[in-house]
Amino acid sequence: MFKNLREKLLGKPLATSAIVMEKLTNLQGLAIFGSDALSSTAYATEEILLVLVAGMASLSIVSVYIALAIAALIFVVAFSYRQVIYEYPQGGGVYNVAIKNLGEYPALIGAASLLIDYVLTAAVSTTAGIAAITSAFPEIYPHRVALGIVVIIFLTWANLRGVRESGKLFALPTYFFLASFFIMIGYGAWKFLNGTFPVSHVTAIPMEPIGALGIVLILHAFASGCAAMTGIEATSNGVGAFQAPESKNAAKTLMWMATVLGIIFLGISSLAFWAKVVPIANETIISQIARLLFDHNIIYYFIQFSTALILLLAANTPFAGFPRVASQLAHDGYFPTQFLNLGSRLVFANGIFLLSLFASLLIFLSQGSVHALIPLYAVGVFLGFSISQFGMIIHWFKKGYGQLKKILINGAGFISTIIVFFIVLYSKFLIGAWILIPAVVLIVFIMKGIKKHYTRTANILSLENNMLPEIMPEKTMIILVQAMDMGALYALKMARSFQPARILALHIATDRAEGEDLKQQWRKYAPDIEIDVLFSEYRDLVNPIINFLKSTDKRWANDRLTLIVPQVALTRWWHYFLHNQTMRRLQLAIDGDPDLNPDIFEVTVKTIIPKSAIR
Amino acid sequence: MFKNLREKLLGKPLATSAIVMEKLTNLQGLAIFGSDALSSTAYATEEILLVLVAGMASLSIVSVYIALAIAALIFVVAFSYRQVIYEYPQGGGVYNVAIKNLGEYPALIGAASLLIDYVLTAAVSTTAGIAAITSAFPEIYPHRVALGIVVIIFLTWANLRGVRESGKLFALPTYFFLASFFIMIGYGAWKFLNGTFPVSHVTAIPMEPIGALGIVLILHAFASGCAAMTGIEATSNGVGAFQAPESKNAAKTLMWMATVLGIIFLGISSLAFWAKVVPIANETIISQIARLLFDHNIIYYFIQFSTALILLLAANTPFAGFPRVASQLAHDGYFPTQFLNLGSRLVFANGIFLLSLFASLLIFLSQGSVHALIPLYAVGVFLGFSISQFGMIIHWFKKGYGQLKKILINGAGFISTIIVFFIVLYSKFLIGAWILIPAVVLIVFIMKGIKKHYTRTANILSLENNMLPEIMPEKTMIILVQAMDMGALYALKMARSFQPARILALHIATDRAEGEDLKQQWRKYAPDIEIDVLFSEYRDLVNPIINFLKSTDKRWANDRLTLIVPQVALTRWWHYFLHNQTMRRLQLAIDGDPDLNPDIFEVTVKTIIPKSAIR
Repeated sequence: MFKNLREKLLGKPLATSAIVMEKLTNLQGLAIFGSDALSSTAYATEEILLVLVAGMASLSIVSVYIALAIAALIFVVAFSYRQVIYEYPQGGGVYNVAIKNLGEYPALIGAASLLIDYVLTAAVSTTAGIAAITSAFPEIYPHRVALGIVVIIFLTWANLRGVRESGKLFALPTYFFLASFFIMIGYGAWKFLNGTFPVSHVTAIPMEPIGALGIVLILHAFASGCAAMTGIEATSNGVGAFQAPESKNAAKTLMWMATVLGIIFLGISSLAFWAKVVPIANETIISQIARLLFDHNIIYYFIQFSTALILLLAANTPFAGFPRVASQLAHDGYFPTQFLNLGSRLVFANGIFLLSLFASLLIFLSQGSVHALIPLYAVGVFLGFSISQFGMIIHWFKKGYGQLKKILINGAGFISTIIVFFIVLYSKFLIGAWILIPAVVLIVFIMKGIKKHYTRTANILSLENNMLPEIMPEKTMIILVQAMDMGALYALKMARSFQPARILALHIATDRAEGEDLKQQWRKYAPDIEIDVLFSEYRDLVNPIINFLKSTDKRWANDRLTLIVPQVALTRWWHYFLHNQTMRRLQLAIDGDPDLNPDIFEVTVKTIIPKSAIR
Repeated sequence: MFKNLREKLLGKPLATSAIVMEKLTNLQGLAIFGSDALSSTAYATEEILLVLVAGMASLSIVSVYIALAIAALIFVVAFSYRQVIYEYPQGGGVYNVAIKNLGEYPALIGAASLLIDYVLTAAVSTTAGIAAITSAFPEIYPHRVALGIVVIIFLTWANLRGVRESGKLFALPTYFFLASFFIMIGYGAWKFLNGTFPVSHVTAIPMEPIGALGIVLILHAFASGCAAMTGIEATSNGVGAFQAPESKNAAKTLMWMATVLGIIFLGISSLAFWAKVVPIANETIISQIARLLFDHNIIYYFIQFSTALILLLAANTPFAGFPRVASQLAHDGYFPTQFLNLGSRLVFANGIFLLSLFASLLIFLSQGSVHALIPLYAVGVFLGFSISQFGMIIHWFKKGYGQLKKILINGAGFISTIIVFFIVLYSKFLIGAWILIPAVVLIVFIMKGIKKHYTRTANILSLENNMLPEIMPEKTMIILVQAMDMGALYALKMARSFQPARILALHIATDRAEGEDLKQQWRKYAPDIEIDVLFSEYRDLVNPIINFLKSTDKRWANDRLTLIVPQVALTRWWHYFLHNQTMRRLQLAIDGDPDLNPDIFEVTVKTIIPKSAIR
């Protein structure tokens, strides 16, 4: 029943041999790997303005200068990643670059920041996509959190089915987005040049400057705008998806992408400055500009819709990236093994679930506000950038002489990104960025712990350093008698057939008279087997059994316990709720008890009930 | 760790011998068993007015006449239950009365209606209690659903700890309530008599009569007002808690309670008529009257607070009643056995959880509206009343002659309650009461199914009609090899020590090369044992194992399979997430497969890892 349901929901299993890599043209590659970075222009300008408006009484050209600085930074980072693409065509994620050049801890810190960023990409892009929709249809604004979580659930479902990164289909939203934004920027620029640019009637509420003025305020705004750079590294993770020569094509695409990203970001920032729009709670800057330029005609809705669509596509990218990194970490022993393997639909299902869980949690905690999530996002991204670029510098040094130009490029990348990292950390520290530090430390700590445990386990299980015991321990079999019935007698007969050193019987009574009665009956049927009837004063069955096992374990020196539990065989799914509940708790308790766990076998004797007798 | 947490949350376990029954004075009994019925006056008048206002353009004295009729009905039912108390002092719930006099199906229908009513009591009382609070503090009205669920969670926690029905403490809210309501009614009557009664400024929005007029409208209103009678039977369930002579004291208390209930209900209905208040969404009738009489002074808040408090107490009563009925049903085989036993704190924990789950669900689905829940509530209550009274009539007939007066009293009770049942069912059918019919049918069907299953199982397990097989089946042992390590070799050695008829080995490979490699290694270490290496094209481990077990099961005629699974012993709780995940899924799959389930033993061989080696 469950299996059929699963197939209906997720589709039929796919054979391992069904993995095929579709090769992408550069234009398709730009659309697919660029969606994450390009879509961030939907909120980056707004983040700059939020800081400036809060800090100054009037709007100024400063926002455009900040956008120019960030556009310059985009090119520095793009040139840096261009080199990563050539050196690590199999996948240039920060973990890979760091583990090869910087060692374990930098790699784990990079991996932790990467995992956090994937979660934030899913949460931020979804939230921003919903914001594009609620700007056009304000009546659904109160439902933004629920909508966001529905989107995450939808993406989870789609990815569990196995979304193939189909170039043609997935490229469309990006093309829509580029078309609509170029139209808006072009039309806006033309209006500005002939002096008919409309100006917003929403005026900034003049506030007291909040202490931060001049350079500090500008740094704050700059830090906020750096959200535009998230996702710029995506191309370096997917070099293998490009047509041959892969590295060259990927590098070319990256540079195109940086150019387009810079133009759109500058364009939006200019439009916002000309239109004198200010951030308000329930309508995005983009929506305000588009409404001023196009009123509520079809182009306005096209802009909002294409913005939502590319953000949905961006929210989808971590569903491929996060599980892949988790799988790589599991392969190296830093993540539980259940993240290692492909599921029946050729996807890493556990990684998808984990991402989905945390992204939903973030959307809920931020109450569907992009602005609340940005601080964490930007810090994590620049931490990853810095580690990656520093790894590249070491890489060039290891490679030897003659790499000066390359060192300079990655050096410029490293220096600028580490500076931005500290700027962002400093300006956003109190409003949320501090969380990143304990979060990264915790994740690194957990990953190290997992690795240590797996290493020790592997050593102990290794055939090389270990010997099996010469003499196997004696067998002490304990029959758990729940009632004097065929199940108990069958279990006894079963135990005898194993020819153990000794057989004991145990019954836990919650009522003294009932216990006495059972003892009498047992003696009639099995006079040669000692039965312990223990009265459980607190009506608990599990703990007295555990205690009995522990004391029995001490009675004989070289023996191993086997607990035989008669159970009723289940022949319908709903029988699950009618039988064997206590035994399930017993099993958990034995598994979880460090004193007992290595010393016991469990044997389940299922009472055979003829199928014909059971409905 | 888990155990400590549980003790912190729920308190230390209590011994069975700690059950003591505190005997209640009549005044305490009135407070405790009366809270459910008395608290329903907080919403019953409002329900009448809701119907009348919707059907007429102006308010009329009709509401007071309806209240009078219901007060008369209260006394008929109270006299009926007076007789139940004398005849069934051990507990006169509808299930008890019906199973002894009417047979299985009426008893199960009664039990189903009782369980539903308990859930509704919890949901309705909580919702109405929250309404009393939000009337005084309108700003928290939007959070009413969340608050309601918090209250249910709080009651769940308190009852899991084991709330002793401490007379002194639990009587207080009822006394507060009685005091505040008598003050309000007395003060209101005095104001009315000297002509200074204030009149509400909220006027009924004149509506078109909605088709229902005259007698039909009055029946609708009457049906709604019958909500006042819910909980009237509570005293008959707790006769044993009274001081000797128990029945006499309980009966006396019941009649007092009916009197007080009638007075308060009539009083509130009169006040509402004098004040000309009409129901509005976010303020209760009680709050409107109290505000008119006392403005917002301390007495107003005292009335709202004591209303909320007695409703909280009423919401608590099903937490004792529901689990007790579930336990009795489990004792008779109609409910899963896990509802039978007292937990470590002397409470029926599973029953508490089930109640809490359904009550929360109802609060959520009704979006915190008492009015939406009332139709279901009243229908279920009167179904229970009717079955109970009919059972009593049969009881008297069985007892023989000379019972005419008693038959007449219960007869009057039966006739009036069955008529009301049909009135309520008819007038509320389309707005929700229809749900009760499939719900009761479903619950009865489930309970019958459970009983049938337990009866068959008991027959099959019974020592009387069954014989053990003379010859035990041969043992075929299958070692599940996950990797070529000490665990696999230890499992093999273990299997040999059981001296089975044959040993097989099985490995599921997701990679062909890896599978070949393992096969070679296995042959080196165990050349005499056949190993099957199966390639899983879909990377699924569980299904290939299940299929192997099924085909192996057919290979030998009289054998039984034993699957030996090497596992890593867990010595820290978090190891749970790092190991044996596939094996847990395998166990579920074997348990849930009707073809396989009766034919297999599972043996878990835990690899011994020295404790010193593990952190």
